[in-house]
Amino acid sequence: MIDTNEISWDESARVKETLSEYADMIMEVIEKYLPETNCLQRKAADAARYSMYAGGKRIRPALVMEFCRVCGGEPETALPVACAVEMTHTFSLIHDDLPCMDNDDMRRGKPSCHKAFGEAEALLAGDLLAVKPYEIIAQAALHKQLPEETALRIISLLSELTGLGGMIGGQTVDIGLSGQTPEVSTILEMYRMKTAALLEFCCKAGCLTAGADASTILTAGTFGQRLGLAFQIIDDILDITADEKLLGKPVGSDSAQGKHTYVEAVGLDEARKTARSLSEQALELLKGFSDNSFLVGLTKMLLYRQY
Amino acid sequence: MIDTNEISWDESARVKETLSEYADMIMEVIEKYLPETNCLQRKAADAARYSMYAGGKRIRPALVMEFCRVCGGEPETALPVACAVEMTHTFSLIHDDLPCMDNDDMRRGKPSCHKAFGEAEALLAGDLLAVKPYEIIAQAALHKQLPEETALRIISLLSELTGLGGMIGGQTVDIGLSGQTPEVSTILEMYRMKTAALLEFCCKAGCLTAGADASTILTAGTFGQRLGLAFQIIDDILDITADEKLLGKPVGSDSAQGKHTYVEAVGLDEARKTARSLSEQALELLKGFSDNSFLVGLTKMLLYRQY
Repeated sequence: MIDTNEISWDESARVKETLSEYADMIMEVIEKYLPETNCLQRKAADAARYSMYAGGKRIRPALVMEFCRVCGGEPETALPVACAVEMTHTFSLIHDDLPCMDNDDMRRGKPSCHKAFGEAEALLAGDLLAVKPYEIIAQAALHKQLPEETALRIISLLSELTGLGGMIGGQTVDIGLSGQTPEVSTILEMYRMKTAALLEFCCKAGCLTAGADASTILTAGTFGQRLGLAFQIIDDILDITADEKLLGKPVGSDSAQGKHTYVEAVGLDEARKTARSLSEQALELLKGFSDNSFLVGLTKMLLYRQY
Repeated sequence: MIDTNEISWDESARVKETLSEYADMIMEVIEKYLPETNCLQRKAADAARYSMYAGGKRIRPALVMEFCRVCGGEPETALPVACAVEMTHTFSLIHDDLPCMDNDDMRRGKPSCHKAFGEAEALLAGDLLAVKPYEIIAQAALHKQLPEETALRIISLLSELTGLGGMIGGQTVDIGLSGQTPEVSTILEMYRMKTAALLEFCCKAGCLTAGADASTILTAGTFGQRLGLAFQIIDDILDITADEKLLGKPVGSDSAQGKHTYVEAVGLDEARKTARSLSEQALELLKGFSDNSFLVGLTKMLLYRQY
């Protein structure tokens, strides 16, 4: 078992409080960018809002805002980008849950988007959340809330790390592995794309909004990658070991779907070691940032989470 | 019947030649932005390339480049935006053909993307083509091929007219009308979003790349809306009257799917009148542009097309 003493109750409580403050800020802007509507086409908006409001830890927007802060910026500056990445993340969840993909009926303890709204509506809600982030970031720059070049770099990075070299690419590898016996390196490369790329984006984009230098952005990106890989491996571990009620989805659903996971390839103990090693690398990278206690606490909390 | 004499053989040949020249330019940049790859995740790229290369008239990129030209710019300047809009259009075709949407097995005379590559792969190929355009436009600006503010305005406009107020919104209305008896005005509003919004984008974005003034951009956008509505109504007419081999998909598929069309609501004769009136309004708007012979010819050609 992992030693849960490495994060104190106090530290954990402080991380959760900050996460919750960031989450409140994010929900406020989501309401602004994706308001309730009575328009003809409201069903896609309703489905998108359902999934955006379905909970989740809001780790990605918190990373964007916190990296902005530790690089000397105001977290508020990063809010449009933080909202954009939460939409991108939610788009991927909605599409991943569809019957032709993972066919998951439940998400975060509630019916998944297509179960609640229908498949076509969920597909369109995902599409909506895939393209909306770019309008949000561009508009922030056009309204002088972000420098133009910064916004363009963030837009390009989001598209790149969401696309073939990132999230969508990783999902493609994932579904392609069904019925095969992949190398461990293939599974890790899939995780790098599927999960770590978007976390890399969050950390880099946060730095960019604060006008950080290239070397800082690079370090933050590497931190995001390590954290992302650790996060995904821990997800796999929890898929086997977690309490179903806490996890909010059926335990063992990965293997039931014939999914290839790192845990399956190397075993639980080795997977725990890798997750710990990656988290330690992530913590080491954080030493390059002053005032990093939230980031350190968050990294530890994600390593020791039970769901 | 519509009087096909209104476009001469010579004029039609010239329009087709220019369209073909623009199409060649576009295919060259598509190859650059979406090259063949041997990467792990190539299946999504292959599926996206399959649909991008499946033909089509490439009207949208031609509109972008031609509006750039008639506003005094070099069409080459508009190439990244032209490629971006063709990707956006192709993303919508791939997702629209999926079983949970229109369930079309054929597209442009070939198996649709999910028939050729599988549903999950087609979903991901569409997702890829939904986000890639923003990287392309942002990179064009970061490489000084477009002014930064122009790129940001184009990015915002593309996201807006692809999103809830445009293409995705229109598709949402379309699937929501199944089993209902919609007002004619609802059908037209659905067409405005589903088809006309992206054509509006093309015309406006072309003007933007040439640095045109606000009033010119507005006129071009209204032209795109009128053309788009006419285009969609003619699509409905052809769905009933066209030669299946020329159309590249089964005739009558709209009504077989229980789709509500303008033709169904007002009849063939009235629909033809509306399409003609919209095209005349579009032609009138083109008088605001000098050197408009290609745009005039294209508008006429789309009105008199047989497939």
